[in-house]
Amino acid sequence: MATLQVMNSPLQQFLKNNNVDVDPKIIAYLTGDMRLTEVRNFATFWSPSAYEHGVRDDIVAKVEPYRTDMSSPASRVQVARLRTAWKLAQEQATVTKAGSGTLTTAGSGTARSFPTIKFSYFNVEGGGECIRLAFALGGVPYIDDRIDMATQWRDLKPKAKFGQLPVITVDGGEQIAQSGAMLRYAGKLAGLIPEDPVEMMKAEEVIGLSWDLVTAITPSMQLDRRPQLYGYQGTPQAELTRIAIGMREKLSAPDGDIDRFLGYLDGLLAKNGTGWFVGSSPTIAECEMIPRLRSLRKGNRDGFPKDIVNKHVNLMKMYFAFHELPAIKAHYKGVPPY
Amino acid sequence: MATLQVMNSPLQQFLKNNNVDVDPKIIAYLTGDMRLTEVRNFATFWSPSAYEHGVRDDIVAKVEPYRTDMSSPASRVQVARLRTAWKLAQEQATVTKAGSGTLTTAGSGTARSFPTIKFSYFNVEGGGECIRLAFALGGVPYIDDRIDMATQWRDLKPKAKFGQLPVITVDGGEQIAQSGAMLRYAGKLAGLIPEDPVEMMKAEEVIGLSWDLVTAITPSMQLDRRPQLYGYQGTPQAELTRIAIGMREKLSAPDGDIDRFLGYLDGLLAKNGTGWFVGSSPTIAECEMIPRLRSLRKGNRDGFPKDIVNKHVNLMKMYFAFHELPAIKAHYKGVPPY
Repeated sequence: MATLQVMNSPLQQFLKNNNVDVDPKIIAYLTGDMRLTEVRNFATFWSPSAYEHGVRDDIVAKVEPYRTDMSSPASRVQVARLRTAWKLAQEQATVTKAGSGTLTTAGSGTARSFPTIKFSYFNVEGGGECIRLAFALGGVPYIDDRIDMATQWRDLKPKAKFGQLPVITVDGGEQIAQSGAMLRYAGKLAGLIPEDPVEMMKAEEVIGLSWDLVTAITPSMQLDRRPQLYGYQGTPQAELTRIAIGMREKLSAPDGDIDRFLGYLDGLLAKNGTGWFVGSSPTIAECEMIPRLRSLRKGNRDGFPKDIVNKHVNLMKMYFAFHELPAIKAHYKGVPPY
Repeated sequence: MATLQVMNSPLQQFLKNNNVDVDPKIIAYLTGDMRLTEVRNFATFWSPSAYEHGVRDDIVAKVEPYRTDMSSPASRVQVARLRTAWKLAQEQATVTKAGSGTLTTAGSGTARSFPTIKFSYFNVEGGGECIRLAFALGGVPYIDDRIDMATQWRDLKPKAKFGQLPVITVDGGEQIAQSGAMLRYAGKLAGLIPEDPVEMMKAEEVIGLSWDLVTAITPSMQLDRRPQLYGYQGTPQAELTRIAIGMREKLSAPDGDIDRFLGYLDGLLAKNGTGWFVGSSPTIAECEMIPRLRSLRKGNRDGFPKDIVNKHVNLMKMYFAFHELPAIKAHYKGVPPY
């Protein structure tokens, strides 16, 4: 999955200048796919107890040709070189810390250090993208462990907590499941959950509405794929499709549930008046909504009209403004997937 | 809805001893239904700008015979007397504060003052009880505004945000919707959300699983009541009931979804080993789960077997231990609704 990129980040420089001879494809994976551009972020990606397995499982095992045979000498050399690089990064990070004070977040004035976060999810937006957006927006380094459903999921499913993705681990600890839990975790580390309890509740109100919208839509999405969930055993596929499309048309009607929920959300933006749902900057509320809105805007795939969001001008403004945020632009490598 | 109770709380004493002559039925509502037993909680129930309408709308308008005609002289006298009592309580609270230091939470060492919280929900457990439990557990004073569906909801629905309950207001501000948002708000004020980000995520993992369980069950609960949600327009009622019961039987089977999710939750308790889901004391995770478990244990109402939770011994232990917590015992007036 690693793609070579024309980049010249400090981490790329560091890996080139220290003669550790890491394969450029691996460097590209680190700085491109994983968006690890700073040496200090690389240095904090694993705890000292986790890096030995970490560089192998999280990095080399994700890059071709090494992935195909991790026990080959070539793979093991790359793993060893990456370990050396990580130790060098540790030293450099320590020197930097001692030499120029503690690392600080812009504006926060407090030192920020992050645990080693490995976020595992399919290589799609789905229920996990909101979490990636929160990490990206807050500049929280994380291992973006993208699982290919066709080639990797069958082996991984029995090891995944509750047999599901996404799962997350922190500092090599136990797996924790549930995307909603991870969104709030990412949001907390990223500073995207308002401190004021009422403002926090308003951000959560948006998430609740988003889930209500999904709940309203879900039967129409699943009916022809998993009819047994709705008591439709034995109904012919063509009939299921007919019923599902009827449900989608009803949901998409001007007085339907989708328009109603989008109207609620649009109204919250209008009322707040800053362009964001709560306060004057994006929160977990926006991280939650962006992939939902994109899914709706894809339209045809699920039988919903593509233009269903368009009339909600505040939502659309927020949608485009969010993609213009530098951290989000970087997350999408400059090509926002409107 | 007010019920006369044999109680002798400080607030009851206060309202009797100060010659304000508030009707005993109203005192019973305050100290019984609303569980306001301390003078200082009564004093902090409204902000100074909100109490004038507050005593009328939140208290007198809830108690018969005043409720029936709020414009009658008798009702207006009670409103006036309650305002006098509130002012007296304000003075007393100020004196207490000055005399004996700031009010502190047991163990926290920091002063605690609460906004005026009005939580409006039907007089059932449903999706709102988890919020009441969080307020109760944390000793957060709130107006437990219980709406009678038969007599009050029709008038209130057009005024309720998004036409739904629960809604909450803080210091007489705008309505905020979504029970999940309110649970986290209540949990934040009540100190029931772990500070550590990973522990917080674990509490949220439980809530996510709980919602997944509800999502799995919902079609079987709604199919015969709201068949249009699942494309069953025109299907005879008897056929809908037959399908719904079949779905419930499948969900309730030993390899069904209910057992699977309860097993996950039971396993989290077993793993943590303290009797609670996270750390060594209850959090919003327990507040979320208790009403869900009770709903399952009611069984027959929805066609599910009553004993479906029983084999999950860690869940059952937690269920009973939670009801033994003094604040929860008080919430249920000493009669836990197992």
